[in-house]
Amino acid sequence: MDMIVIMRSSATEDDVQRVVDRVAELGLTPHRSTGEFRTIVGAIGEKTPQAREQLEQLSGVDEVMAITQPYKLASREFHEADTILDVRGIRIGGPHVNIIAGPCAIESRDVLFGVGKAVKDAGAAILRGGAFKPRTSPYSFSGMGRKGLEILKEAGEELAMPTITEVLDPRDVGVVYDYADIFQIGARNMQNFNLLLEVGKTDKPVFIKRGLAASITDLLMSAEYVLSQGNHRVILCERGIRTFSEETRFTLDVSAVPVIQERSHLPVFIDPSHAAGKRDLVPALALAGIAAGAAGAIVEVHSCPDRALCDGPQAVLPKNFVQLMEQIRQIAEIVGHRVTLWGREDAAPRRPAVGGWAG
Amino acid sequence: MDMIVIMRSSATEDDVQRVVDRVAELGLTPHRSTGEFRTIVGAIGEKTPQAREQLEQLSGVDEVMAITQPYKLASREFHEADTILDVRGIRIGGPHVNIIAGPCAIESRDVLFGVGKAVKDAGAAILRGGAFKPRTSPYSFSGMGRKGLEILKEAGEELAMPTITEVLDPRDVGVVYDYADIFQIGARNMQNFNLLLEVGKTDKPVFIKRGLAASITDLLMSAEYVLSQGNHRVILCERGIRTFSEETRFTLDVSAVPVIQERSHLPVFIDPSHAAGKRDLVPALALAGIAAGAAGAIVEVHSCPDRALCDGPQAVLPKNFVQLMEQIRQIAEIVGHRVTLWGREDAAPRRPAVGGWAG
Amino acid sequence: MDMIVIMRSSATEDDVQRVVDRVAELGLTPHRSTGEFRTIVGAIGEKTPQAREQLEQLSGVDEVMAITQPYKLASREFHEADTILDVRGIRIGGPHVNIIAGPCAIESRDVLFGVGKAVKDAGAAILRGGAFKPRTSPYSFSGMGRKGLEILKEAGEELAMPTITEVLDPRDVGVVYDYADIFQIGARNMQNFNLLLEVGKTDKPVFIKRGLAASITDLLMSAEYVLSQGNHRVILCERGIRTFSEETRFTLDVSAVPVIQERSHLPVFIDPSHAAGKRDLVPALALAGIAAGAAGAIVEVHSCPDRALCDGPQAVLPKNFVQLMEQIRQIAEIVGHRVTLWGREDAAPRRPAVGGWAG
Amino acid sequence: MDMIVIMRSSATEDDVQRVVDRVAELGLTPHRSTGEFRTIVGAIGEKTPQAREQLEQLSGVDEVMAITQPYKLASREFHEADTILDVRGIRIGGPHVNIIAGPCAIESRDVLFGVGKAVKDAGAAILRGGAFKPRTSPYSFSGMGRKGLEILKEAGEELAMPTITEVLDPRDVGVVYDYADIFQIGARNMQNFNLLLEVGKTDKPVFIKRGLAASITDLLMSAEYVLSQGNHRVILCERGIRTFSEETRFTLDVSAVPVIQERSHLPVFIDPSHAAGKRDLVPALALAGIAAGAAGAIVEVHSCPDRALCDGPQAVLPKNFVQLMEQIRQIAEIVGHRVTLWGREDAAPRRPAVGGWAG
Repeated sequence: MDMIVIMRSSATEDDVQRVVDRVAELGLTPHRSTGEFRTIVGAIGEKTPQAREQLEQLSGVDEVMAITQPYKLASREFHEADTILDVRGIRIGGPHVNIIAGPCAIESRDVLFGVGKAVKDAGAAILRGGAFKPRTSPYSFSGMGRKGLEILKEAGEELAMPTITEVLDPRDVGVVYDYADIFQIGARNMQNFNLLLEVGKTDKPVFIKRGLAASITDLLMSAEYVLSQGNHRVILCERGIRTFSEETRFTLDVSAVPVIQERSHLPVFIDPSHAAGKRDLVPALALAGIAAGAAGAIVEVHSCPDRALCDGPQAVLPKNFVQLMEQIRQIAEIVGHRVTLWGREDAAPRRPAVGGWAG
Repeated sequence: MDMIVIMRSSATEDDVQRVVDRVAELGLTPHRSTGEFRTIVGAIGEKTPQAREQLEQLSGVDEVMAITQPYKLASREFHEADTILDVRGIRIGGPHVNIIAGPCAIESRDVLFGVGKAVKDAGAAILRGGAFKPRTSPYSFSGMGRKGLEILKEAGEELAMPTITEVLDPRDVGVVYDYADIFQIGARNMQNFNLLLEVGKTDKPVFIKRGLAASITDLLMSAEYVLSQGNHRVILCERGIRTFSEETRFTLDVSAVPVIQERSHLPVFIDPSHAAGKRDLVPALALAGIAAGAAGAIVEVHSCPDRALCDGPQAVLPKNFVQLMEQIRQIAEIVGHRVTLWGREDAAPRRPAVGGWAG
Repeated sequence: MDMIVIMRSSATEDDVQRVVDRVAELGLTPHRSTGEFRTIVGAIGEKTPQAREQLEQLSGVDEVMAITQPYKLASREFHEADTILDVRGIRIGGPHVNIIAGPCAIESRDVLFGVGKAVKDAGAAILRGGAFKPRTSPYSFSGMGRKGLEILKEAGEELAMPTITEVLDPRDVGVVYDYADIFQIGARNMQNFNLLLEVGKTDKPVFIKRGLAASITDLLMSAEYVLSQGNHRVILCERGIRTFSEETRFTLDVSAVPVIQERSHLPVFIDPSHAAGKRDLVPALALAGIAAGAAGAIVEVHSCPDRALCDGPQAVLPKNFVQLMEQIRQIAEIVGHRVTLWGREDAAPRRPAVGGWAG
Repeated sequence: MDMIVIMRSSATEDDVQRVVDRVAELGLTPHRSTGEFRTIVGAIGEKTPQAREQLEQLSGVDEVMAITQPYKLASREFHEADTILDVRGIRIGGPHVNIIAGPCAIESRDVLFGVGKAVKDAGAAILRGGAFKPRTSPYSFSGMGRKGLEILKEAGEELAMPTITEVLDPRDVGVVYDYADIFQIGARNMQNFNLLLEVGKTDKPVFIKRGLAASITDLLMSAEYVLSQGNHRVILCERGIRTFSEETRFTLDVSAVPVIQERSHLPVFIDPSHAAGKRDLVPALALAGIAAGAAGAIVEVHSCPDRALCDGPQAVLPKNFVQLMEQIRQIAEIVGHRVTLWGREDAAPRRPAVGGWAG
């Protein structure tokens, strides 16, 4: 039963008949049930995208409810096992917890290499850094562009860490592909559908952040855009939604983690830095996300945040990141997960013994 | 006084001194005031974008408040008179009220010409129709593309109406420029900054819809992106925000109209169709917006909405649009405005006597 | 069909059977439909309040949807005609538009009589004034209490205006009953169910403001509390909801007016003053509400707002209220309504020729 | 510096002077600073509640900002150490983590005793159960009232557990005082100020849940109401706020935990059950809250939730609660806290050796 059409109590027999006819005309099988107050008409079969909207408008119809979810490839209903991705030997999803860390923006070779070394030593698996920065103001620093990508690639190779960076524009998908390991789609681009289609045509993982006002269904539909192009390597990220609450920049919806896990097989990360907007709150939110079962966190770290060109107030200092990693590691275990400690001695055996990767 | 740094009650003399020094280092003039419980440090001068974030992180600082708005070109503070745009002889802004109407998507030549004729006869000034449709689902109809643009241009010429259509991708700015009179930036692209920069480099008006989770400051910053590129022809549009309220698709924030008018000189429209999501509610919201002083409304009209490929449930029927236009006309007058009745006999004298426009 | 139980695609035959059995056990008639992917079980009959919650938990159940609304007495489904109340000769609801005006709090005899006279002369029908004020801070002025009620009653009699005042505490229902004509239930007490039950036992009209986070269903359920006690004189009021938008104190959800009118027969007012929080925005919101079809507005007016003890910033000056009333009167007519001009010469014949009311 | 008055750039010298004069008239010391674009006037001293509102309205004023928080007794600024309460030998706040558990409503002696025994054995410290239930619908089960309180008291004594129950009406404060150890103020009553004043006059702890649309400042102001009456035993609880997100009943704002801890000395709990509305999500949210540093959680547990009269879908089964308690215990330790294991052998020494309590 794909949809249910609920008739008003005032609907006439003619109204019901017209709905039954239109359901059939749409290629679905109608199924009528008469209740005490209301009649409902079920519609069985694969619905076309407009069917629901069109039925909703017929005379005597109160509401049309879709029973099946609008996404298929992203749904756990049709893909029961957790998706586990492999990125340069690191496994993402399932029981694996990975921490992505680094500065908000790539500002210089020195800062990126310094912070990268520190977070790797602390146990971070993947290196982040923005070369194209979406900024609310046209007068703010908007990233180093291609030059930043070059530094990121070098840092990733030198530190032997996979890298992630944001892509903002469909025209930049090619260049970002050349320099980074994971595409990040920011919250403000979660419904930039052409951008989703472009990264969907590549074979690199796509890390999609939930939009500020996006429902979980919306987020899974954005994943569906990428999946529908043949790229099955999608990671989702809760990064805070916009609510009336003013005390933090956004409200981290920690319940998104178990809700998405129930509905989808894709890995779910959390971003405590952008949600909080203030470094003092980052550890509590990061731990909350890991305790809720997230597959990882993306954390901004900066060695000198009060000189940062972007989002300094939310960047954690390297020394505090060390302690946070230790707590993350312990909490992950309590909930049956395991942190990938890529940069640490004890992680060495898990690195690929051979492989084409220079790092 | 550009910013105010508020120290914690526990801040030491050293903390205050460090703030004073950093303010000076940032090229601003510090101005210290000692209160009963707290000290504040004012910072006088043109602030750099990062100054606020950096000061916020210094020891002993509780909060940094910006006194001046982050937008300048969009602000009424520096441009007191209402901006009035001229689009093919139609004046937009100030006391002029213009109604934009047409189908959601361009589906065929017949529908667009039929609806276009009907809305023009009823008094609409500008014709709308989408050729590129942003759809939540990758499986939905996403517009006719360039073919749709051709039909739109033809219809505009035949009906002698300026046209508006959405542009989704920076790569399409050129083709949309060739075929339509006004660029529409949809709510989901309000912070697609590269797209804003591209349309900012053209000389055609840009109609920016407020994002689902965008503050009014965010909206004005997006306008600032366009203005900063030299294109001063910007129109804003309130189209409903996302709130907990489920009864309508979005919540039309009608107060955005007077709030924006107080803060900016740019014209503000409302979109009752997308806010409501249901045609029965469209007239009430359209009239509310005009009564609140909006410079116009963008209304979806369809001759056969229960066969529409996109957003049929919110499309008004042509016959109801006639009545709505009449009420809009009357209410506009009560609040001191005047509806442009472009398609009606009495509007004839206001049409340009000569001009390059074929229509 | 009262409820629909949607089974998961993975539900077993046993799961379905258990649902069918429980539906029967709950005194409802089960009605099973098997679809391509899912089975649904309808439940026909009058549902008990817990039935939905209990069914939701059975094995294999995905979701339970209620088809009928949870309110009955407030629903237009069972009471098609608009409710029109008579309060001391003034008719509220249907085509009648009434403006309630006066100061936020009763501060003194002089202010209340002065403002009351001014708003009556301008055309307001009902006098407002708070004697018990709910204040966020325990250190704010919380009203004159019984002394304020005495002044209000006197003013109502002298000006021949019905009065409305807020009641906060079930223990005060008796005293407020003695002094005022209409009980106001504030937004923060919309779900103070014991208070609703108390006013429901009286025979005076109850004016219920929508809570800051209340859905329209929640609001109608609160009306249902009053109606269920036998008091059928209920008026609803949209006064702004809490959203992420910071530019106004609350976001006036103007669409609540047509939505409630579709679902309920009860009159719906709007409160532009509390929604805006700033007097400059009050006229735009008041006119928007009337244009959307509201049965009236409740507006705060003060002769010297910058000396007011409560909510001065949102109080309109008497001279501006005169102009606002005139615009309200004209807009009401355009949407087929008529303002009660109780205090004006032309309204005189509509006052009750005889009656028990001293004024 | 208590307040800052920011003048518009267009303010005249006279405007500024009038503000300076009014500040002085309000008993505050004015302090003027002239900037490049704007003048600001500081106001030093203890402000009266209306001062801000009144200044806001003066000619030429753009905005008035309060520098100090509106709450004092609840603020950490004036009470640096964590408040630790003692309830029948159990310590709440500081490093102590306490779990409150039990059924939503008291439905029968059997259920309460059975669930109470189970949760105590699992390690819960405090027993919950509602005798007065606030229900959205007047047709729902609204609790057993005094009879329920009697059962609760008996259960608490028999199990040697302190008890908590909701009070809805100022008229019931006396009877609840007689039967329970902790007053619970529900989210819908967080701003029922008369109720807050009544419990503030007693000497029993008050557990205040954050309202659905309450800011953290609002919550602390409600605490201030209780504290201002002399009752310093206040516990706060984040229980989910209302946002656009539909996937859970409410959105647990886990960041409220560290934010409140920074601003106030009062203990902060979380309520994962009401936030989620579904039992499958409760463990993830409970663990998230404890990982974020909460002083405890209040969890609904029911032995037969699909027969429960109230909120069954969110009740955890006793067997799952055992596992949850174990994870809570471990996570609390990782963040430097310690769970009170009142009902377990190892907790025995911490019970009061002597005392008037029968249990």
